[in-house]
Amino acid sequence: MKCTVLKEKLVDAVNRVMKAISSKTTMPILTGVKITSGSDGITLTGSNSDISIKSFIPLEEDGNENATINTPGQIVLPSRLFSELVRKLPNDDVHIEVDSRLITKIISGATEFSLNGLDPEEYPNLPIINENDVFKIRKDLLKDLVRQTVYAVAVTETRPVLTGVKWIIQDSRLSCVATDSHRLAQRSVAIEDAEESGPHTLVIPGPSLNELSKILDDDDEQMVDIVMTNNQILFKSHNVQFYSRLLDGNYPDTSRLIPSDSKTTIDLGTKALYHAIERASLLAKEERNNVVKLRAEGNQVEISSQSLELGRVYETLVTEKFEGDPLRISFSAKFMMDALSKVDAQNVRIHFAGPMRPIIIRPIGDENILMLILPIRTF
Amino acid sequence: MKCTVLKEKLVDAVNRVMKAISSKTTMPILTGVKITSGSDGITLTGSNSDISIKSFIPLEEDGNENATINTPGQIVLPSRLFSELVRKLPNDDVHIEVDSRLITKIISGATEFSLNGLDPEEYPNLPIINENDVFKIRKDLLKDLVRQTVYAVAVTETRPVLTGVKWIIQDSRLSCVATDSHRLAQRSVAIEDAEESGPHTLVIPGPSLNELSKILDDDDEQMVDIVMTNNQILFKSHNVQFYSRLLDGNYPDTSRLIPSDSKTTIDLGTKALYHAIERASLLAKEERNNVVKLRAEGNQVEISSQSLELGRVYETLVTEKFEGDPLRISFSAKFMMDALSKVDAQNVRIHFAGPMRPIIIRPIGDENILMLILPIRTF
Repeated sequence: MKCTVLKEKLVDAVNRVMKAISSKTTMPILTGVKITSGSDGITLTGSNSDISIKSFIPLEEDGNENATINTPGQIVLPSRLFSELVRKLPNDDVHIEVDSRLITKIISGATEFSLNGLDPEEYPNLPIINENDVFKIRKDLLKDLVRQTVYAVAVTETRPVLTGVKWIIQDSRLSCVATDSHRLAQRSVAIEDAEESGPHTLVIPGPSLNELSKILDDDDEQMVDIVMTNNQILFKSHNVQFYSRLLDGNYPDTSRLIPSDSKTTIDLGTKALYHAIERASLLAKEERNNVVKLRAEGNQVEISSQSLELGRVYETLVTEKFEGDPLRISFSAKFMMDALSKVDAQNVRIHFAGPMRPIIIRPIGDENILMLILPIRTF
Repeated sequence: MKCTVLKEKLVDAVNRVMKAISSKTTMPILTGVKITSGSDGITLTGSNSDISIKSFIPLEEDGNENATINTPGQIVLPSRLFSELVRKLPNDDVHIEVDSRLITKIISGATEFSLNGLDPEEYPNLPIINENDVFKIRKDLLKDLVRQTVYAVAVTETRPVLTGVKWIIQDSRLSCVATDSHRLAQRSVAIEDAEESGPHTLVIPGPSLNELSKILDDDDEQMVDIVMTNNQILFKSHNVQFYSRLLDGNYPDTSRLIPSDSKTTIDLGTKALYHAIERASLLAKEERNNVVKLRAEGNQVEISSQSLELGRVYETLVTEKFEGDPLRISFSAKFMMDALSKVDAQNVRIHFAGPMRPIIIRPIGDENILMLILPIRTF
């Protein structure tokens, strides 16, 4: 293998695939980044047991030359070292040359690295994805979907399926739901160009979705192609392919968790409520459970918390709408702040079905988003 | 105590004094911040066994009102909580009121905190400083002095006096020197308005100087008043007082460490050399000792390093001046990078007195700065 490539393109590509590479792996070859130079460009690959990322540098792009291939070939290089050294090379051009003993020369300006490469034949093949079930979604919408659901997945492995987000693709809609059994987040959106062989249900690991969000660049209006199989999902964006394994197991039916009735409904400014809870949490988090109290009566909503050692805090918000019974309820400050921080709307409507029943938070103006948190008994 | 103060002024003052407050202390009262409201303004104090910081908020400044005092008094509040909550208060004004049981109300907008204060009578007095020996130095020069010397102090306590920087004030000059016995940094500057009772030598703990640098704001042309006593040093800048204890013990005579002869002298671009060593260090740091090699002959300087596992790196720099014998020498990449990163000049002159004798680095154009590192035997 012998090629020359623009440093900035190489830096971008390495940064992306590094997201899939873990230093803790049972397969040493997977600590490396695989570099393949072919007739149309250079592909970098990183992989762990859950996700794999391919980042492609085309020979030419928008009329600019990115790379020249002298001899096609492939090599695997230690990823952490390679990503650091590429960033620190002195010149705009990087020349890469691999000899028959896998010794890889990386030359830029007056700098010459000579690295011991790893055997690319040992690098596992990525899953072969059959592109039968495909749909498209705008990149910014995909990022929003992930952000507004993935925070609610379980982090403990007690029920592994709950560490993922359930996606249901049906009738040109994608519905996402996540729950750790103390809270829940769901959102649905319309999708485009869906080629479906009937409805699909799949559970994507939460950490995969977090990494996906990080590698999607800011070109928000672009479409992402999503390919589904039984055990893998593939996201294809501009020059990037992101593979994730899917989770096995039956995801619980979450619709039964959501109360259909409401005893008290209040409307509040999203930010005002968030900041009031954040301040109350300053004392609440010094106690073990980070619980804040909410009392609502008339158009007054009082947020409070206390710490035996440190003191108390009270804050009164004025609600723009109050319906139903006066209310006293307690909940996790963290869970409420997590939910509110995902809301883009100026105001939220909160439904309380009773002091020990789930609290439902909805952004006013978007019926496709629903967040739920369970209260905590303190009164 | 009862007063009202601008939130932004309070945030600034708390951030400053927090630098002196440690959560690990044998005196619980010192985990708190002391607030004193007097007739001319509000003073915040933070302290640990090494340093104390006072930050003063005058009632008025530049024609703007900062604070109103209703009742003078003092209180000590848990510092971490107080600094977080002040930042998160909703309004520009903060009202503070302390009752006879030390319960402290902090009110801003619709938020009301009620904190359990600590007894200010238990707060230790700051050292009383006799202002006999005083001099002035420009703030930006003081920051440069600290930056260019403190990095070379010892971090282990084998010889406690080496964890400080030695300051000698004599004949209207301040000379600073630091060494951990593997490297050394020194710089001298002219000082102003010195009222000295003879020459002074004092050793200031390195960590104190680092904290001092952090709390000095960017108003670089201001003068800092420096007051010396036998066991304390006091830095007085605009509305801030910074006290540090001094280190006991005899600081070694470092002048004997500096070779007066030179067998090889080379001039190099500061940044080019820094980056070449940084790249070589990528492989060197994978080995235990992070050692890079330098070979110089004619006008060529080769920087190299290798890791048995990963590979090698070579880089050739062209020197603008080469005098003396050809040279092969090895040294710590970290020590050389630490030194070069403190140089503002475009080029450095490096003197080598032999493969196992100290290396002297000087910025070209500033004779008042000298850096020394010991080589490491590898050839």
